[in-house]
Amino acid sequence: MIIRSGIVISSLLLSLSAPAQDLSHGKWIDLTHAFNENSVYWPTADMFKQTEVFAGHTDGGYYYSAYNFSAAEHGGTHLDSPIHFAEGGHTADQLPVEQLVGPGFVIDVSKQSAENVDYLVTAADIEAFEKDHGALPKGAIVLLMTGRAELYNDREQYMGTAERGEAAVAKLHFPGLSKEGASLLVARGINAVGIDTPSIDYGQSSDFATHVELMTHNIPAFENVADMSALPATGSTIIALPMKIEGGSGGPLRIVAHIK
Amino acid sequence: MIIRSGIVISSLLLSLSAPAQDLSHGKWIDLTHAFNENSVYWPTADMFKQTEVFAGHTDGGYYYSAYNFSAAEHGGTHLDSPIHFAEGGHTADQLPVEQLVGPGFVIDVSKQSAENVDYLVTAADIEAFEKDHGALPKGAIVLLMTGRAELYNDREQYMGTAERGEAAVAKLHFPGLSKEGASLLVARGINAVGIDTPSIDYGQSSDFATHVELMTHNIPAFENVADMSALPATGSTIIALPMKIEGGSGGPLRIVAHIK
Repeated sequence: MIIRSGIVISSLLLSLSAPAQDLSHGKWIDLTHAFNENSVYWPTADMFKQTEVFAGHTDGGYYYSAYNFSAAEHGGTHLDSPIHFAEGGHTADQLPVEQLVGPGFVIDVSKQSAENVDYLVTAADIEAFEKDHGALPKGAIVLLMTGRAELYNDREQYMGTAERGEAAVAKLHFPGLSKEGASLLVARGINAVGIDTPSIDYGQSSDFATHVELMTHNIPAFENVADMSALPATGSTIIALPMKIEGGSGGPLRIVAHIK
Repeated sequence: MIIRSGIVISSLLLSLSAPAQDLSHGKWIDLTHAFNENSVYWPTADMFKQTEVFAGHTDGGYYYSAYNFSAAEHGGTHLDSPIHFAEGGHTADQLPVEQLVGPGFVIDVSKQSAENVDYLVTAADIEAFEKDHGALPKGAIVLLMTGRAELYNDREQYMGTAERGEAAVAKLHFPGLSKEGASLLVARGINAVGIDTPSIDYGQSSDFATHVELMTHNIPAFENVADMSALPATGSTIIALPMKIEGGSGGPLRIVAHIK
């Protein structure tokens, strides 16, 4: 095998940006809402359904349970793969594992979000975080904490309406990331961005400019992320593994954090 | 917070059994088959289906794609949660993250499996591995490598029959883990066991004694794991994150390995 200089450089950059994370100590925090009949889906999307195949004692003398399930790709704690809003972007199965793992940076916008349900996280919010914690490194996984994960089980509170169907879309209200904020994250070369609301664009968006900005740069989004309040602003490692759906525009995501 | 002696002891044991794994170096290996219409399911189980909601350019000027999907919980690369074969066992959402992450131990039974499609991995096979590599530690994730992952796309080769329905079940032929082997792994206190065949019990099983033995001890199984041949026998870290289905008997699993 020939070691190319490009590989050496990228390895050096990685070692600068990602401090060693020792998984044999510390603890895990699950940032994933469980899938059930109340899981949050877009008003126009098919919801999660689970149906029993069998659950009980069998003639063979052993206990057995099994279920079928169905859903839209985008609901519950889930991945938006770049192809969701960018033609030719990576599908769920094409995203490399290296992009789904990285140092976590939690930007707390819960105060702004509490004051304004339609809050758009600004580039200035991100720059303020960088002033306190240093510049976001290449390969960062940025988590936007609006503090709204605790409302997840009340759809009207969480997303502005519990109604279903096309007419409900205009009634969606929840915070998101501004296009300018997305551009700054693209410039930093982050791996991925996550948020504890149903969408990386805010509820009132009609052009989905933030999705387009991120995904045309092959950056995925993690949506309906669960409560991040136990995470430090820096120093965690995020591991976000989606269901490997071939050609998928996204899908169920299991996202966990390791902290020291 | 009061630090109890139990916590200190368990942390000490963990540090002895799980060598430090630095995720900022080394590389990732994806041990997951992608879900598509050819994904391997039990002859009696619903297969994976993906249906298009929309894929193309929208009136809003942006590209958009989204799909729905459905499947049985048990198919493709997937988790068998303890409740699959043990009443009261952990469901997919109840398995703690700590149990889904651990040092990987790859037991190579590809020679035996090539000679006998109905091969049952024995306790002696596991003891032979331990003679070479030391005893399996508490918290190990044990991967049984039959070498049959390469047959995955040819169901007749991979599982003995491509037929569907109840009558096909008797025609299933693939290697599995013996009940005695399972008992030894239970005694070692492993976190989980994986195999590159459709089931941890071999194809000809009718009593599923291996499932019952593992799962009554709350040990999950990972099935249809993809090609493990790039993994070392010891020294990897396995991260196996299932879709968090509430009450699920199992479900799609994304399993990856980190090696130095």
